[in-house]
Amino acid sequence: MIRSLNDIVEELCREESYQAVSHRHSHEVPMPSPEKLSEIVETLRGVLFPGYFGQHDLTPETMRFAVGYALDRVFRALSDQVKRGFCFACSREQVAACTDCEARSQDLTTRFLSRLPHIRAMLAADVQAAFDGDPAAKTPGEAIFCYPSIKALTNYRIAHELHNLNVDVIPRIIGEMAHSQTGIDIHPGARIGGNFFIDHGTGTVIGETCIIGEGVRIYQGVTLGAKSFPKDDMNRLVKGLARHPIVEDDVTIYAGATILGRVTIGKGAVVGGNVWVTQDIPPGARVVQAQRCEITNGETI
Amino acid sequence: MIRSLNDIVEELCREESYQAVSHRHSHEVPMPSPEKLSEIVETLRGVLFPGYFGQHDLTPETMRFAVGYALDRVFRALSDQVKRGFCFACSREQVAACTDCEARSQDLTTRFLSRLPHIRAMLAADVQAAFDGDPAAKTPGEAIFCYPSIKALTNYRIAHELHNLNVDVIPRIIGEMAHSQTGIDIHPGARIGGNFFIDHGTGTVIGETCIIGEGVRIYQGVTLGAKSFPKDDMNRLVKGLARHPIVEDDVTIYAGATILGRVTIGKGAVVGGNVWVTQDIPPGARVVQAQRCEITNGETI
Amino acid sequence: MIRSLNDIVEELCREESYQAVSHRHSHEVPMPSPEKLSEIVETLRGVLFPGYFGQHDLTPETMRFAVGYALDRVFRALSDQVKRGFCFACSREQVAACTDCEARSQDLTTRFLSRLPHIRAMLAADVQAAFDGDPAAKTPGEAIFCYPSIKALTNYRIAHELHNLNVDVIPRIIGEMAHSQTGIDIHPGARIGGNFFIDHGTGTVIGETCIIGEGVRIYQGVTLGAKSFPKDDMNRLVKGLARHPIVEDDVTIYAGATILGRVTIGKGAVVGGNVWVTQDIPPGARVVQAQRCEITNGETI
Amino acid sequence: MIRSLNDIVEELCREESYQAVSHRHSHEVPMPSPEKLSEIVETLRGVLFPGYFGQHDLTPETMRFAVGYALDRVFRALSDQVKRGFCFACSREQVAACTDCEARSQDLTTRFLSRLPHIRAMLAADVQAAFDGDPAAKTPGEAIFCYPSIKALTNYRIAHELHNLNVDVIPRIIGEMAHSQTGIDIHPGARIGGNFFIDHGTGTVIGETCIIGEGVRIYQGVTLGAKSFPKDDMNRLVKGLARHPIVEDDVTIYAGATILGRVTIGKGAVVGGNVWVTQDIPPGARVVQAQRCEITNGETI
Amino acid sequence: MIRSLNDIVEELCREESYQAVSHRHSHEVPMPSPEKLSEIVETLRGVLFPGYFGQHDLTPETMRFAVGYALDRVFRALSDQVKRGFCFACSREQVAACTDCEARSQDLTTRFLSRLPHIRAMLAADVQAAFDGDPAAKTPGEAIFCYPSIKALTNYRIAHELHNLNVDVIPRIIGEMAHSQTGIDIHPGARIGGNFFIDHGTGTVIGETCIIGEGVRIYQGVTLGAKSFPKDDMNRLVKGLARHPIVEDDVTIYAGATILGRVTIGKGAVVGGNVWVTQDIPPGARVVQAQRCEITNGETI
Amino acid sequence: MIRSLNDIVEELCREESYQAVSHRHSHEVPMPSPEKLSEIVETLRGVLFPGYFGQHDLTPETMRFAVGYALDRVFRALSDQVKRGFCFACSREQVAACTDCEARSQDLTTRFLSRLPHIRAMLAADVQAAFDGDPAAKTPGEAIFCYPSIKALTNYRIAHELHNLNVDVIPRIIGEMAHSQTGIDIHPGARIGGNFFIDHGTGTVIGETCIIGEGVRIYQGVTLGAKSFPKDDMNRLVKGLARHPIVEDDVTIYAGATILGRVTIGKGAVVGGNVWVTQDIPPGARVVQAQRCEITNGETI
Repeated sequence: MIRSLNDIVEELCREESYQAVSHRHSHEVPMPSPEKLSEIVETLRGVLFPGYFGQHDLTPETMRFAVGYALDRVFRALSDQVKRGFCFACSREQVAACTDCEARSQDLTTRFLSRLPHIRAMLAADVQAAFDGDPAAKTPGEAIFCYPSIKALTNYRIAHELHNLNVDVIPRIIGEMAHSQTGIDIHPGARIGGNFFIDHGTGTVIGETCIIGEGVRIYQGVTLGAKSFPKDDMNRLVKGLARHPIVEDDVTIYAGATILGRVTIGKGAVVGGNVWVTQDIPPGARVVQAQRCEITNGETI
Repeated sequence: MIRSLNDIVEELCREESYQAVSHRHSHEVPMPSPEKLSEIVETLRGVLFPGYFGQHDLTPETMRFAVGYALDRVFRALSDQVKRGFCFACSREQVAACTDCEARSQDLTTRFLSRLPHIRAMLAADVQAAFDGDPAAKTPGEAIFCYPSIKALTNYRIAHELHNLNVDVIPRIIGEMAHSQTGIDIHPGARIGGNFFIDHGTGTVIGETCIIGEGVRIYQGVTLGAKSFPKDDMNRLVKGLARHPIVEDDVTIYAGATILGRVTIGKGAVVGGNVWVTQDIPPGARVVQAQRCEITNGETI
Repeated sequence: MIRSLNDIVEELCREESYQAVSHRHSHEVPMPSPEKLSEIVETLRGVLFPGYFGQHDLTPETMRFAVGYALDRVFRALSDQVKRGFCFACSREQVAACTDCEARSQDLTTRFLSRLPHIRAMLAADVQAAFDGDPAAKTPGEAIFCYPSIKALTNYRIAHELHNLNVDVIPRIIGEMAHSQTGIDIHPGARIGGNFFIDHGTGTVIGETCIIGEGVRIYQGVTLGAKSFPKDDMNRLVKGLARHPIVEDDVTIYAGATILGRVTIGKGAVVGGNVWVTQDIPPGARVVQAQRCEITNGETI
Repeated sequence: MIRSLNDIVEELCREESYQAVSHRHSHEVPMPSPEKLSEIVETLRGVLFPGYFGQHDLTPETMRFAVGYALDRVFRALSDQVKRGFCFACSREQVAACTDCEARSQDLTTRFLSRLPHIRAMLAADVQAAFDGDPAAKTPGEAIFCYPSIKALTNYRIAHELHNLNVDVIPRIIGEMAHSQTGIDIHPGARIGGNFFIDHGTGTVIGETCIIGEGVRIYQGVTLGAKSFPKDDMNRLVKGLARHPIVEDDVTIYAGATILGRVTIGKGAVVGGNVWVTQDIPPGARVVQAQRCEITNGETI
Repeated sequence: MIRSLNDIVEELCREESYQAVSHRHSHEVPMPSPEKLSEIVETLRGVLFPGYFGQHDLTPETMRFAVGYALDRVFRALSDQVKRGFCFACSREQVAACTDCEARSQDLTTRFLSRLPHIRAMLAADVQAAFDGDPAAKTPGEAIFCYPSIKALTNYRIAHELHNLNVDVIPRIIGEMAHSQTGIDIHPGARIGGNFFIDHGTGTVIGETCIIGEGVRIYQGVTLGAKSFPKDDMNRLVKGLARHPIVEDDVTIYAGATILGRVTIGKGAVVGGNVWVTQDIPPGARVVQAQRCEITNGETI
Repeated sequence: MIRSLNDIVEELCREESYQAVSHRHSHEVPMPSPEKLSEIVETLRGVLFPGYFGQHDLTPETMRFAVGYALDRVFRALSDQVKRGFCFACSREQVAACTDCEARSQDLTTRFLSRLPHIRAMLAADVQAAFDGDPAAKTPGEAIFCYPSIKALTNYRIAHELHNLNVDVIPRIIGEMAHSQTGIDIHPGARIGGNFFIDHGTGTVIGETCIIGEGVRIYQGVTLGAKSFPKDDMNRLVKGLARHPIVEDDVTIYAGATILGRVTIGKGAVVGGNVWVTQDIPPGARVVQAQRCEITNGETI
């Protein structure tokens, strides 16, 4: 074994081998930490839904201490992660050039924290939508405590605010954390209105430039995605174009529907399961598979 | 930062802000603990499949000690969680009114434990179905040890027995634990017969009032769901109605099929992938997409 | 409770109850450990993508120490797991008969380690494909650090090399680890060419005998699966047959497509979302749902 | 082995075997938890010495949140431990008889918390004494952060307040925690004045009924103990008598001195190392070994 | 730095540098594990003192499960450690020569387990002696739960039985674990009779060949040690000679007494604090410092 | 409770209350971390004694990887701690003034690492001295693996090198870690020659300015301390004076001896147990208690 081990080590340490897949930190700042971000999000979950997550026995009197202590810790931990995010994405070689990273990260984190009351208000409406929309839910509390939808939307609404502040990479990591746990993949750049509900949710994808209205309900396996992408003269993808659907208020989309491109699903429309949509749907329309299925007797699949 | 922090704390601690999303424990009983429930389920997995999970080196002689010790701990830990589940769902304000919670929780937990031999027998048949149904499986042991299907069904069969005992919330949490890990979302209320196999399973959803017969096999991305829900006079969802499919014995449902509503898929039927079914399917039928696909040359998607 | 507890223990310890679901280690070797395998894979991730995972502050000079130390530990830990895998699958009763398990495991592990430079080269191309294929990706580093696709392909490419060495069970466990975290289920036996990209990926399944060419791109919810399986004279599944699709170079498959059986999707073909394919697709073809959907006004779903 | 194991289990489970060394909780309240008490004491250390222990980056503005949050948690955790302490010591068989345990524990814990400013003031003086008394200390901060004396006195001053409130067992456990870590064994019942310093401290013992004045300094291996104990008519120890030394202000006691019984070491006295004292020492006296040592040449020890 | 690092590594990896301080495992068996031994001892503490340590809520009915389960695990874990102990001490180069290590370790462990009822009986008497001997103890339970003496004696009585079975190294490690936590250093080879009590205990040393009778009580800082050691013709220490004191029944030894050599302290004798004894003490004698101390006025120490 | 809690918080957050016991980090650098230092010392223990601590199965070939990897990590972690130590002790208010802290810390850490071969050589001789000096030791390996003496000397020899480089606070913390575990308190400033052995060691103290020659052996409870300290005109301790004993080569000091002040114990002298020495001892002398003890009959102690 030994000779081989030395040889393998040599081979893996040749620059040709590692250069395309290694990361050199010219700024000596460590990578963003998914573990730390997970702690931060869990702390925020406790702040947003007091009594459900984190300390369960808060009183109105002690809540102030708990929330203040939590936000102070989140401030420090998150501004550190935000800074790591900037360094991750940064291509500058000189440390000197990024002296304001720390101050900027702290400023953005403060601005993020001031959005928490708004985030909570949005989530309160999402909880109500989940309770109203699912006959299996006995109380709104059950949705808060158990539903993957609320878990994923909490991560999304946090990540979306960070995305709006132009924080690098961190929103994406927070989104992927929820994706891994719930199977719901919402890009932090998507814009999602109030009273939103995703039932079950595994496999649902909401792309970067989606715009979703109020009171929308979607199911598992729904894709709000993009079609094939235009390339520039040098055959590189043109990045940043609006390429995902607009879903207007009160739309319902059933399981497995795939809606691609910058199309508009009109207000109040209902999209049936498993359909493939690449065109606009007028308001109030019902869309189903053309001929739903063919029933035969005996053919083996 | 500091002034802001104080302000944000104040805002988050105003009653209008938190009242809709906070939980007040009038009974001073803590929340159900997903971590504890996870330990309980893992301990039960070791009891149900001895040698595969938990202690690997049991002999027939020492198994009695290990099983007895495990069940004694599960009894204490689970009856505590069951009690927390009741308090979670309880709306009574006075502690005095729920003096029997503890005794009731212990009684139900005992009754649950006495169902373990039944649960094991059901799972043994599921394991056999997985081995028989998957050419990639080399031994039944591989299915027990590696298959998401068996992991999800173990959680389901545990949760289902607790659901039958009218335990609150806990069955749902146990179900969501499996959902998060496997992508298979089975509501604890569903009734599932023996020799059941789910292949791959990601995105499969089995709703609360489903009834599934013997020897059924389904694939990933299959939805056995409900259609839009009737509302009562006050525009609230009517909860508890039978609204999911009945799947009779020996049915096979391929990947991505979406079957909605209280329809019946007759004995021995085969439902092809990606179909959308909202009507009864007769026994023995084969259901496929009407016209499976259109092959063209050159249109860009 | 107590009398019941004793009774339940007795019942669960009767041989009839446990024999079908228990594992007896005639070789006194413990089960493969998913926890250890997870550590091993994380260590390899740090070796394959230096600076992104594991120690972040390597220099070209210290990389040699870190890689050598990591591979030495992986060698010991993985050859132990490989041996456990053999014993897991082994039906021989006598310890005497498997004296070469240890030496064989070490030999295979050495051979696996010597494939790491190849694995890294394949993954470097996958990273490039992810960056080229996703307008939302700002740098290749983001794909390495955040994308479920790269996480799942890293596990797959490791597992596939172990599969090629006829290692038992371990490749499957490594594959299921990625399946659980990303919802992407790739069987270690599948053969996947370079520059492969899976976008989002939840619910995607790639079966054991799939053969995938260069530059293929697939989306979430895509199934490359098998149709119903032939059985032998004794009504047992015939295992090991080629039963999954061949996907040629430069094919794109959109979300939710289900392709079953040993069919060939020709070079450069594009398969639209939600289609159900059980026949060959010629090179360059575009396949979409026959009649995508029917838009009505007012029918309640 | 197996037969033996069963036999050993039987023997250990016979009542004659375990009755003298087992604990039956008629009150169903668990044992006090040294782990929890350790966390409580560490949290209090952070409150008492802000910036040195616990969160290092407090500002005057955020300190209030951190202290409030810490004390709220300590209140809950410590009142639970105090209650366990009462149950540990309780001989009553009926649960009914101890309904006020919980309320009493909470009341005592509140009273304890209100003593924290006093405890901090005492410790501030001890820190100054350590700095003034040790030429090796460069700053008072070094004493706070590194000196076993300050660690042991922090535990003692906490435990002493709980002892004064007649809390059972808990003060003793807190004292033993410091004993185990520092080798300094101070009984929580001892009364110790301000500006106290123990240098090195390993092996120093301060008994239950000691009274120590202001500005006393003692070294390692010093015993302030009791002589043989009087017994009552039934040959049982008479418990609770004053039986340990009184040490007046400004006394210094060097390493290894053993002072036994209710004797008084007068103000300003200096007790040399290794002496054995069982009588009063007048104020201002110097006590040394009578004839310190005998120097010979060649005798082997 | 880097060049230096390489140089330092080279220097530390030269055989001359490491040969005297490195351990080569010719048997490929890992070192004994203090962590594992600590777990084993804690498990045994729970078996020996049921309800005080380990699971607190055993009933007579469930105790059998808990004890059986605990001993089964201890059997496996301890026989592995015993084997590691043999390999640690083994100088044989060939693996072939030690094929019986495993069987021997299991046999000795079984014999050790069968001594547990005896160990418990001895400890029950030690607990009673602690309660009888310390006016500060309110109940025997307090001694079991809090006293360093009982902690150290539990480790000693376990280690002594293993020592009697000629187990290598392991008894010493178990002894040092207690030494580190309590400051009480009892060599596993010492022979200690029943009803033994050590008060406070920090710094007390009981040497390998000590023989201690019934009902002995000693205090902190007491040394029962050896004088200078005879050497053989090659100037090497003669190992294994009886060289520590014999302490007969009912002796009391106060803090800081140093008793060296194979002397006998006669039945019922009392040795005062800080004395230096290298000769026999007759039964019933009282030994104190010749002239206890000299009291002067004003001399500075 | 609540009103009180607020009041207590207010009181503890008043500046008069906390100013003497709080630490303000003007440099925003966290406290030294005992946990990190413990990891660093354990890593170094593995480097110094390969095979005994850390990875047990090194070969001459893989040792280089393991040592290089370990030292690279120690370099980063220790230079960070060294910097924290400087900031801990630093009184400057302006961050600007200490820009070279980081570079200086890295430089000193490199210089420390280059002393490791020397530290190992010293420890190898200490190990030999322990084996030669203790009839209970069966192999030198037992001393390395089990003896508190070697554990304490390893910490001391590491801390001493850091002390020689004028590192602040960190050496003291490393010394106290050993003190807490072994009861042996060696100040990092002491100078200790080769072949040093401390038997048992609990309560032994070796002061800051001690100078100890070659081949010295001391026992538990030995104090090499200082007498009362001179103060300057402002009544402050004069710090840094030589105030502890010089112990020449081949001296033996028995348990409990207390030697104070800058006295010299001459080459080859033997100091008996429990003596109190404040004067020079000539080379080769034997020092014992003047009149060892008085044996009486019947006086109660």
